[in-house]
Amino acid sequence: MALVKYKSTTRKLKGGLAVESQARNFKIVMDEPETLGGTNTGINPVETLLCAFGACQTIVALAFAQSQNINLQDFWVDVEGDLDPDGFMKGAPGIRPGFQEVRFTMHIKSNSSEDKVQAFQKFIENRCPVSDTLSKGVAIKPGKIVIEK
Amino acid sequence: MALVKYKSTTRKLKGGLAVESQARNFKIVMDEPETLGGTNTGINPVETLLCAFGACQTIVALAFAQSQNINLQDFWVDVEGDLDPDGFMKGAPGIRPGFQEVRFTMHIKSNSSEDKVQAFQKFIENRCPVSDTLSKGVAIKPGKIVIEK
Repeated sequence: MALVKYKSTTRKLKGGLAVESQARNFKIVMDEPETLGGTNTGINPVETLLCAFGACQTIVALAFAQSQNINLQDFWVDVEGDLDPDGFMKGAPGIRPGFQEVRFTMHIKSNSSEDKVQAFQKFIENRCPVSDTLSKGVAIKPGKIVIEK
Repeated sequence: MALVKYKSTTRKLKGGLAVESQARNFKIVMDEPETLGGTNTGINPVETLLCAFGACQTIVALAFAQSQNINLQDFWVDVEGDLDPDGFMKGAPGIRPGFQEVRFTMHIKSNSSEDKVQAFQKFIENRCPVSDTLSKGVAIKPGKIVIEK
Protein backbone atom coordinates (compact mmCIF):
# COMPACT_ATOMS: atom_id res chain seq x y z
CA MET A 1 0.00 0.00 0.00
CA ALA A 2 1.17 3.55 -0.59
CA LEU A 3 2.02 5.91 2.24
CA VAL A 4 -1.00 7.54 3.85
CA LYS A 5 -0.67 11.12 5.07
CA TYR A 6 -2.28 12.11 8.38
CA LYS A 7 -2.70 15.76 9.28
CA SER A 8 -3.57 18.07 12.12
CA THR A 9 -3.63 21.80 12.79
CA THR A 10 -3.32 23.41 16.21
CA ARG A 11 -4.23 27.02 16.99
CA LYS A 12 -4.02 29.07 20.13
CA LEU A 13 -7.32 29.96 21.74
CA LYS A 14 -7.97 33.28 23.42
CA GLY A 15 -5.69 33.98 26.37
CA GLY A 16 -3.61 31.73 28.58
CA LEU A 17 -2.09 28.52 27.24
CA ALA A 18 -5.27 26.89 25.90
CA VAL A 19 -5.10 25.55 22.33
CA GLU A 20 -7.34 23.62 19.98
CA SER A 21 -6.05 20.82 17.76
CA GLN A 22 -8.03 19.51 14.83
CA ALA A 23 -7.71 16.44 12.60
CA ARG A 24 -10.45 15.98 9.98
CA ASN A 25 -13.63 17.13 11.78
CA PHE A 26 -12.42 16.10 15.25
CA LYS A 27 -11.14 18.59 17.80
CA ILE A 28 -9.26 18.34 21.09
CA VAL A 29 -8.87 21.30 23.46
CA MET A 30 -5.59 21.17 25.37
CA ASP A 31 -4.27 23.33 28.19
CA GLU A 32 -2.00 23.06 31.20
CA PRO A 33 -3.02 22.80 34.84
CA GLU A 34 -2.55 25.94 36.93
CA THR A 35 0.66 24.52 38.42
CA LEU A 36 2.20 24.75 34.93
CA GLY A 37 0.83 28.18 34.07
CA GLY A 38 -2.43 27.21 32.36
CA THR A 39 -6.09 27.48 33.25
CA ASN A 40 -6.82 23.71 33.22
CA THR A 41 -9.54 23.85 30.54
CA GLY A 42 -8.30 20.65 28.91
CA ILE A 43 -5.99 17.68 28.94
CA ASN A 44 -2.32 18.55 28.45
CA PRO A 45 -0.21 17.43 25.46
CA VAL A 46 1.90 14.86 27.27
CA GLU A 47 -1.24 13.27 28.73
CA THR A 48 -2.70 13.29 25.22
CA LEU A 49 0.37 11.45 23.99
CA LEU A 50 -0.20 8.75 26.64
CA CYS A 51 -3.88 8.55 25.64
CA ALA A 52 -2.90 8.10 21.98
CA PHE A 53 -0.61 5.24 23.02
CA GLY A 54 -3.25 3.48 25.14
CA ALA A 55 -5.93 4.00 22.50
CA CYS A 56 -3.69 2.60 19.78
CA GLN A 57 -2.96 -0.51 21.84
CA THR A 58 -6.66 -0.97 22.59
CA ILE A 59 -7.72 -0.54 18.97
CA VAL A 60 -5.06 -3.01 17.81
CA ALA A 61 -6.35 -5.48 20.44
CA LEU A 62 -9.93 -5.06 19.27
CA ALA A 63 -9.05 -5.18 15.58
CA PHE A 64 -6.90 -8.32 15.73
CA ALA A 65 -8.34 -10.43 18.58
CA GLN A 66 -10.38 -12.62 16.24
CA SER A 67 -7.59 -13.27 13.72
CA GLN A 68 -5.23 -14.06 16.63
CA ASN A 69 -7.80 -16.50 18.07
CA ILE A 70 -8.25 -14.53 21.27
CA ASN A 71 -11.61 -14.48 22.95
CA LEU A 72 -11.55 -10.83 24.08
CA GLN A 73 -14.33 -10.14 26.57
CA ASP A 74 -12.89 -6.92 27.90
CA PHE A 75 -9.72 -4.89 27.55
CA TRP A 76 -8.24 -1.82 29.17
CA VAL A 77 -4.77 -0.44 29.56
CA ASP A 78 -3.15 1.87 32.11
CA VAL A 79 -0.30 3.98 30.79
CA GLU A 80 2.04 6.20 32.76
CA GLY A 81 5.16 8.17 31.99
CA ASP A 82 7.82 10.07 33.95
CA LEU A 83 8.92 13.55 33.00
CA ASP A 84 11.13 16.08 34.78
CA PRO A 85 9.60 19.57 34.33
CA ASP A 86 13.05 21.15 34.77
CA GLY A 87 13.80 19.89 31.25
CA PHE A 88 11.19 22.00 29.48
CA MET A 89 10.56 24.72 32.08
CA LYS A 90 14.21 25.65 32.64
CA GLY A 91 16.11 23.91 29.84
CA ALA A 92 18.22 22.33 32.57
CA PRO A 93 21.39 20.73 31.10
CA GLY A 94 21.29 16.94 30.92
CA ILE A 95 17.54 16.72 31.57
CA ARG A 96 15.52 15.80 28.52
CA PRO A 97 12.30 17.81 28.08
CA GLY A 98 10.32 14.71 27.12
CA PHE A 99 9.35 11.48 28.79
CA GLN A 100 12.16 9.54 30.42
CA GLU A 101 10.18 6.29 30.54
CA VAL A 102 6.69 5.10 29.63
CA ARG A 103 5.10 2.07 31.28
CA PHE A 104 1.87 0.24 30.61
CA THR A 105 -0.24 -2.48 32.18
CA MET A 106 -2.76 -4.30 30.01
CA HIS A 107 -5.90 -5.77 31.54
CA ILE A 108 -7.47 -8.52 29.46
CA LYS A 109 -10.63 -10.46 30.23
CA SER A 110 -10.55 -13.64 28.19
CA ASN A 111 -11.05 -17.37 28.52
CA SER A 112 -8.12 -17.97 26.17
CA SER A 113 -5.07 -19.60 27.79
CA GLU A 114 -2.56 -17.40 29.63
CA ASP A 115 0.14 -18.29 27.09
CA LYS A 116 -2.06 -17.13 24.24
CA VAL A 117 -2.89 -13.92 26.07
CA GLN A 118 0.81 -13.26 26.71
CA ALA A 119 1.57 -13.81 23.03
CA PHE A 120 -1.28 -11.46 22.14
CA GLN A 121 0.29 -8.71 24.25
CA LYS A 122 3.52 -9.13 22.26
CA PHE A 123 1.54 -9.02 19.02
CA ILE A 124 -0.09 -5.74 20.09
CA GLU A 125 3.28 -4.22 21.03
CA ASN A 126 4.74 -5.15 17.64
CA ARG A 127 1.83 -3.91 15.53
CA CYS A 128 0.78 -0.75 17.35
CA PRO A 129 1.71 2.32 15.25
CA VAL A 130 1.98 4.66 18.25
CA SER A 131 4.05 2.15 20.23
CA ASP A 132 6.44 1.81 17.28
CA THR A 133 6.67 5.58 16.79
CA LEU A 134 7.36 6.28 20.48
CA SER A 135 9.76 3.42 21.14
CA LYS A 136 11.89 3.87 18.01
CA GLY A 137 11.39 7.60 17.49
CA VAL A 138 10.61 9.29 14.20
CA ALA A 139 12.39 11.85 12.00
CA ILE A 140 10.78 15.26 12.48
CA LYS A 141 11.34 17.76 9.68
CA PRO A 142 10.59 21.46 10.15
CA GLY A 143 9.18 23.25 7.16
CA LYS A 144 10.04 26.86 6.35
CA ILE A 145 8.53 29.05 9.06
CA VAL A 146 5.68 31.23 7.80
CA ILE A 147 5.65 34.76 9.19
CA GLU A 148 2.06 35.96 8.89
CA LYS A 149 1.26 39.63 8.35
CA MET B 1 12.59 19.13 40.39
CA ALA B 2 11.57 15.55 40.97
CA LEU B 3 10.07 13.38 38.25
CA VAL B 4 6.38 13.97 37.68
CA LYS B 5 4.21 11.00 36.76
CA TYR B 6 1.51 11.44 34.11
CA LYS B 7 -1.18 8.81 33.71
CA SER B 8 -3.98 7.70 31.42
CA THR B 9 -6.38 4.79 31.15
CA THR B 10 -8.02 3.62 27.94
CA ARG B 11 -11.04 1.31 27.76
CA LYS B 12 -12.95 -0.19 24.89
CA LEU B 13 -16.43 1.16 24.32
CA LYS B 14 -19.33 -0.99 23.22
CA GLY B 15 -18.80 -2.63 19.83
CA GLY B 16 -16.49 -1.81 16.94
CA LEU B 17 -13.10 -0.22 17.51
CA ALA B 18 -14.22 2.82 19.51
CA VAL B 19 -12.33 3.49 22.75
CA GLU B 20 -12.26 6.14 25.45
CA SER B 21 -9.03 7.44 26.96
CA GLN B 22 -8.97 9.40 30.19
CA ALA B 23 -6.33 11.48 31.97
CA ARG B 24 -7.43 13.21 35.18
CA ASN B 25 -11.03 14.28 34.43
CA PHE B 26 -10.45 14.75 30.69
CA LYS B 27 -11.64 12.21 28.12
CA ILE B 28 -10.96 11.62 24.43
CA VAL B 29 -13.03 9.21 22.32
CA MET B 30 -10.99 7.58 19.58
CA ASP B 31 -12.01 5.32 16.73
CA GLU B 32 -10.93 4.50 13.19
CA PRO B 33 -12.56 5.61 9.96
CA GLU B 34 -14.62 3.01 8.12
CA THR B 35 -11.75 2.42 5.67
CA LEU B 36 -9.74 1.02 8.61
CA GLY B 37 -12.55 -1.03 10.12
CA GLY B 38 -14.01 1.49 12.55
CA THR B 39 -17.21 3.49 12.75
CA ASN B 40 -15.56 6.96 12.64
CA THR B 41 -16.98 8.19 15.96
CA GLY B 42 -13.72 9.90 16.90
CA ILE B 43 -10.23 10.96 15.96
CA ASN B 44 -7.80 8.08 15.51
CA PRO B 45 -4.71 7.49 17.68
CA VAL B 46 -2.08 8.50 15.12
CA GLU B 47 -3.96 11.74 14.46
CA THR B 48 -4.12 12.27 18.22
CA LEU B 49 -0.35 11.85 18.34
CA LEU B 50 0.03 14.61 15.74
CA CYS B 51 -2.39 16.81 17.72
CA ALA B 52 -0.37 16.26 20.90
CA PHE B 53 2.76 17.34 19.02
CA GLY B 54 1.19 20.49 17.55
CA ALA B 55 -0.44 21.39 20.87
CA CYS B 56 2.83 20.97 22.73
CA GLN B 57 4.64 23.24 20.27
CA THR B 58 1.87 25.83 20.53
CA ILE B 59 1.81 25.78 24.32
CA VAL B 60 5.60 26.13 24.48
CA ALA B 61 5.33 29.10 22.10
CA LEU B 62 2.66 30.74 24.25
CA ALA B 63 4.42 29.99 27.53
CA PHE B 64 7.84 31.30 26.50
CA ALA B 65 7.20 34.10 23.99
CA GLN B 66 7.55 36.84 26.57
CA SER B 67 10.76 35.51 28.16
CA GLN B 68 12.22 35.05 24.67
CA ASN B 69 11.29 38.65 23.76
CA ILE B 70 8.92 37.60 21.00
CA ASN B 71 5.85 39.68 20.33
CA LEU B 72 3.47 36.79 19.55
CA GLN B 73 0.25 38.07 18.00
CA ASP B 74 -0.89 34.75 16.61
CA PHE B 75 0.45 31.23 16.26
CA TRP B 76 -0.66 28.04 14.59
CA VAL B 77 1.09 24.93 13.38
CA ASP B 78 0.28 22.37 10.71
CA VAL B 79 1.60 18.88 11.38
CA GLU B 80 1.56 15.90 9.05
CA GLY B 81 3.00 12.42 9.11
CA ASP B 82 3.39 9.52 6.68
CA LEU B 83 2.47 5.99 7.60
CA ASP B 84 2.22 2.82 5.52
CA PRO B 85 -0.86 0.85 6.68
CA ASP B 86 0.73 -2.40 5.44
CA GLY B 87 3.01 -2.15 8.49
CA PHE B 88 0.26 -2.49 11.10
CA MET B 89 -2.53 -4.09 9.03
CA LYS B 90 -0.42 -6.90 7.58
CA GLY B 91 2.81 -6.86 9.57
CA ALA B 92 4.60 -6.56 6.24
CA PRO B 93 8.35 -7.24 6.63
CA GLY B 94 10.53 -4.14 6.49
CA ILE B 95 7.63 -1.73 6.89
CA ARG B 96 7.44 -0.09 10.29
CA PRO B 97 3.92 0.14 11.76
CA GLY B 98 4.47 3.71 12.95
CA PHE B 99 5.16 7.04 11.32
CA GLN B 100 8.00 7.11 8.81
CA GLU B 101 8.34 10.88 8.94
CA VAL B 102 6.61 13.79 10.67
CA ARG B 103 6.71 17.33 9.25
CA PHE B 104 5.49 20.62 10.62
CA THR B 105 5.03 24.19 9.45
CA MET B 106 4.76 26.94 12.05
CA HIS B 107 2.79 30.10 11.32
CA ILE B 108 3.75 33.04 13.49
CA LYS B 109 2.26 36.51 13.44
CA SER B 110 4.74 38.86 15.09
CA ASN B 111 6.43 42.18 14.59
CA SER B 112 9.67 40.76 15.97
CA SER B 113 12.49 40.43 13.43
CA GLU B 114 12.64 37.39 11.16
CA ASP B 115 15.92 36.30 12.77
CA LYS B 116 14.35 36.37 16.22
CA VAL B 117 11.33 34.43 14.99
CA GLN B 118 13.60 31.79 13.41
CA ALA B 119 15.51 31.47 16.68
CA PHE B 120 12.21 31.16 18.53
CA GLN B 121 11.23 28.20 16.32
CA LYS B 122 14.50 26.47 17.30
CA PHE B 123 13.81 27.25 20.96
CA ILE B 124 10.36 25.65 20.67
CA GLU B 125 11.79 22.53 19.00
CA ASN B 126 14.38 22.14 21.75
CA ARG B 127 12.02 22.64 24.68
CA CYS B 128 8.87 20.85 23.52
CA PRO B 129 8.36 17.65 25.55
CA VAL B 130 6.38 15.86 22.83
CA SER B 131 8.90 16.86 20.13
CA ASP B 132 11.73 15.49 22.27
CA THR B 133 9.84 12.27 23.02
CA LEU B 134 8.96 11.64 19.37
CA SER B 135 12.27 12.61 17.81
CA LYS B 136 14.50 10.72 20.26
CA GLY B 137 12.10 7.95 21.23
CA VAL B 138 11.41 6.73 24.75
CA ALA B 139 11.88 3.44 26.59
CA ILE B 140 8.53 1.67 26.89
CA LYS B 141 8.26 -0.94 29.64
CA PRO B 142 5.41 -3.44 29.72
CA GLY B 143 4.10 -4.34 33.14
CA LYS B 144 2.87 -7.83 33.99
CA ILE B 145 -0.29 -8.49 32.02
CA VAL B 146 -3.38 -8.71 34.21
CA ILE B 147 -5.84 -11.40 33.22
CA GLU B 148 -9.20 -10.31 34.59
CA LYS B 149 -11.81 -12.86 35.69
